[in-house]
Amino acid sequence: MAYIQLDENLPGLLSLLEYRHDTAKPIRELTQFLLRGPSSLSEGERELIAALVSYKNQCKFCTASHTALADLFLGEPFTAAEMKHNLKTVLIDEKLRALLQIAALVQQNGQNVTNEAIEKAKAEGATDIEIHDTVLIASLFSMCNRYVDGLNTFTPSQPAFYREMAEKLATTGYA
Amino acid sequence: MAYIQLDENLPGLLSLLEYRHDTAKPIRELTQFLLRGPSSLSEGERELIAALVSYKNQCKFCTASHTALADLFLGEPFTAAEMKHNLKTVLIDEKLRALLQIAALVQQNGQNVTNEAIEKAKAEGATDIEIHDTVLIASLFSMCNRYVDGLNTFTPSQPAFYREMAEKLATTGYA
Repeated sequence: MAYIQLDENLPGLLSLLEYRHDTAKPIRELTQFLLRGPSSLSEGERELIAALVSYKNQCKFCTASHTALADLFLGEPFTAAEMKHNLKTVLIDEKLRALLQIAALVQQNGQNVTNEAIEKAKAEGATDIEIHDTVLIASLFSMCNRYVDGLNTFTPSQPAFYREMAEKLATTGYA
Repeated sequence: MAYIQLDENLPGLLSLLEYRHDTAKPIRELTQFLLRGPSSLSEGERELIAALVSYKNQCKFCTASHTALADLFLGEPFTAAEMKHNLKTVLIDEKLRALLQIAALVQQNGQNVTNEAIEKAKAEGATDIEIHDTVLIASLFSMCNRYVDGLNTFTPSQPAFYREMAEKLATTGYA
């Protein structure tokens, strides 16, 4: 049970966004801008960053939500599943791999990002803004994962719930 | 040097907020609402939460900034300094100690928050909204610390810089 009184019909982050509208608004806007706004990274690529960080933080609600969204945008479920276990070998382009490796370092601590990891991403063609957005998406999910789990919100166990939510979020967006 | 091209005259988070105005806006709004908005927790107490999480994440820029702000709002520099090293014994009221202990658990991972830590805060009189805001402030700084350090932004070394910025931020707010 959640640590504070939340709407029992709402799961995970949704129950928190409903609990406090004034903090929900900027969280929704930041998420919408980073994951759905104009970007040279595709929506699927950005959802992979969100899913990877959430997985590494062991946040079940966010991992299931953003994996379902990545699967939907990519049109297949193999990349997200494989990325979590084998980031070094999963079949993705090398720029995306380098960005996901930066995100994985940010998940640990911002100071763990190395000059080498940044240079690798730049050598694969990553721009400043792509590196910026990768670091900020990884940071944002370091926040959301803690918010969701730190208040012990409800995590539905049926995969169908996340697929249906993903279909809705893919259309309506986060804001 | 920062990993991406930032205004060299701006330090830490300030250089990032200037780099991308569209993501800066919701970050500023969320910070303003949580640290300066209406709350039964004082501004000094909320800045202590920000300073503690930043210290535990070893983010020098955010630690110095929010310690200076806590010192300013509390009117003395002893509580913030002592809290970082001796949270169990620092002279503060027991409700605040329990909330800071929750924040320290959130800093590690949301899942580390225990029912016991929540019950202790409630027994000391913490309300649901105070627990919610503590968890979200700790989560927000888990984001900001990673954003600032993950892009290797400039950290001024002179204490006077942080005192002057604190005086400005205490007046103008974050938004």
